[in-house]
Amino acid sequence: MQENSLGIVSPRVEHFQEPLTFSCGRKLASYELIFETYGELNSDASNAILICHALSGHHHAAGFHDEHERKPGWWDACIGPGKPIDTRRFFVVSLNNLGGCHGSTGPTSENPETGEAFGPDFPQPQVDDWVDAQARLADRLGINCWAAVVGGSLGGMQAMAWSLRYPERLRHCIVIAAAMKLSAQNIAFNEIARRAIMSDPGFAEGYYLRDGTQPTQGLALARMVGHITYLSDDAMAARFGRELQPSNPEDSNPDAPQFQIESYLRYQGQQFSSVFDANTYVLMTRALDQFDLAAAYGGDAVAAFAQARCDYLVLSFSTDWRFSPARSREIVDALLAAERPVSYAEIEADEGHDAFLLPIPRYLAVLDAYLQRVQA
Amino acid sequence: MQENSLGIVSPRVEHFQEPLTFSCGRKLASYELIFETYGELNSDASNAILICHALSGHHHAAGFHDEHERKPGWWDACIGPGKPIDTRRFFVVSLNNLGGCHGSTGPTSENPETGEAFGPDFPQPQVDDWVDAQARLADRLGINCWAAVVGGSLGGMQAMAWSLRYPERLRHCIVIAAAMKLSAQNIAFNEIARRAIMSDPGFAEGYYLRDGTQPTQGLALARMVGHITYLSDDAMAARFGRELQPSNPEDSNPDAPQFQIESYLRYQGQQFSSVFDANTYVLMTRALDQFDLAAAYGGDAVAAFAQARCDYLVLSFSTDWRFSPARSREIVDALLAAERPVSYAEIEADEGHDAFLLPIPRYLAVLDAYLQRVQA
Repeated sequence: MQENSLGIVSPRVEHFQEPLTFSCGRKLASYELIFETYGELNSDASNAILICHALSGHHHAAGFHDEHERKPGWWDACIGPGKPIDTRRFFVVSLNNLGGCHGSTGPTSENPETGEAFGPDFPQPQVDDWVDAQARLADRLGINCWAAVVGGSLGGMQAMAWSLRYPERLRHCIVIAAAMKLSAQNIAFNEIARRAIMSDPGFAEGYYLRDGTQPTQGLALARMVGHITYLSDDAMAARFGRELQPSNPEDSNPDAPQFQIESYLRYQGQQFSSVFDANTYVLMTRALDQFDLAAAYGGDAVAAFAQARCDYLVLSFSTDWRFSPARSREIVDALLAAERPVSYAEIEADEGHDAFLLPIPRYLAVLDAYLQRVQA
Repeated sequence: MQENSLGIVSPRVEHFQEPLTFSCGRKLASYELIFETYGELNSDASNAILICHALSGHHHAAGFHDEHERKPGWWDACIGPGKPIDTRRFFVVSLNNLGGCHGSTGPTSENPETGEAFGPDFPQPQVDDWVDAQARLADRLGINCWAAVVGGSLGGMQAMAWSLRYPERLRHCIVIAAAMKLSAQNIAFNEIARRAIMSDPGFAEGYYLRDGTQPTQGLALARMVGHITYLSDDAMAARFGRELQPSNPEDSNPDAPQFQIESYLRYQGQQFSSVFDANTYVLMTRALDQFDLAAAYGGDAVAAFAQARCDYLVLSFSTDWRFSPARSREIVDALLAAERPVSYAEIEADEGHDAFLLPIPRYLAVLDAYLQRVQA
């Protein structure tokens, strides 16, 4: 473990008996949220920061679950003592969203109406529904107003939604590598991911747990598609180039990978499909596709942001082609027109969309400088 | 039919009894090539132009097969009387490559050794093998030297390979929206396409014809992936934006398409998988991945092009992110360093890689101006 790591952390679970009605009209009679906290909540509960996760993320954002865990939480680069989200100053809350597959109620949880897993019958959440569930968790933890709500990618969409839905309940909103809505190309990639999952016979129309099958190949393919869009062309070139596998390229098995990028993608896809739930992946991509920050304001993002009361930091990465800097500048332009205080930085990085997870010095420096200004 | 169309055209088939040894060492004892010709070969056979097709292309490049055919050949925008590749001046030859599924010998053809379809046992062709087969077709047609060899995308790779492999047999080489080799990202997309096909249970390890199955879903998915990479983000935005399907977005069927881009991609995928052979798709993408113009010259493209004797026209399209203008400029730089005469134009176009198939005025004008200079 690194010196400035949080060390061993443990998740907690809160049970909620109050029904939660989703935007689609369907409701959960009760549910659980799994989350981790890092640092100490101060006496007036003014130093809390909420971390919102992206498509395949979860509550384990920093530290290690035990001393044998090989890798720390997914955002350990940014969260910890002396790191930009400094746990010596802030009380950090990171949860798994509803519909997830890491401990919060989701498609793999038992549907009380049937006694079996929800599977495809889990209600489709929207970003706003996640924000509502997060607000209830804040109530439970005694946090009336977040010092900051922070997220990258789909997490950045949740952070923006917080600032419109509960404008009095956050002072700062940090939006990293996100967009106000997906482009047709973004949706197209998600559609391919869903098609790959749903056309796998093991998907069984979503009832694979009941049927004892698994859409392993389809989910692996979906992840492979996603993975390409997270990396820049340059990052792929630097990591893999056109290097051939050590094995014989004239291998008589036409299915043998020939280039390193092929075996890397297959490995990533297989790993992912062994730990992630396919119905969750479908739900998460649908929530991404359907997010449209300004929709409720007649498509006017300036009118939307006029509801907000917080300050904003918006960050983008130069080679991110999934949510490019241009999409972040649209956010900034709307915020400026709505006369919201906003800081913006485009970080030079070769790693594409994935850069938001990485310890890139200028990225950490900008985040750190902004958070120094945030009163705890 | 438009006024400057070739009207009705008919394919021809040539049988070759001389064995053809592929780069991989395997050989075809005999084979057939299907092709079309447009215009008249002149007395000294100096006015012939060869058209090389791309991944999913075929011999039917222009005109109509019958009066009921809804759409003309795939490059009718460029080939015909009064068009840039003017059939009043040139004799145009367009063939289906070996390994294809439109009439030339390929995976759906009978393997004489087994009496059944080759299926996955068809030898893997390389771009050079296609060029060799095309050279034999030229011999058969009495064409010693092409006025020009022309191709877009994978077709452009064949055109470049012609100029190195048979430098005395072409006077002009026209390379459109191509690259000297694929990037890791290009390979990654092809790998996903192959994974989609091969993980479809209907693929039956390539023996689907024997088994009476079809990897329809996998091939449709593969085509969907390809389709995204052919279109620019802007072109998708212009055509589909985030328009919802007319149907109810709260449709209880979670698999119902919600955005127009989704139903468009599904339709394209389904159409394609009903007319194209999955083994051919695998072979074609492998040939693309493995093409590396300079490999035989120690990776030195300048040394490679020093073999050439022809003039070049290189064209790229501004929003093509599959084979971007930067990839074309690499070709141009190598040609200049090798002291080959080369003209280059980057065409402003919103349509991405697909632009090379479209009647974009400046594109047609540049092609026309260049071909006016080509002596027939």
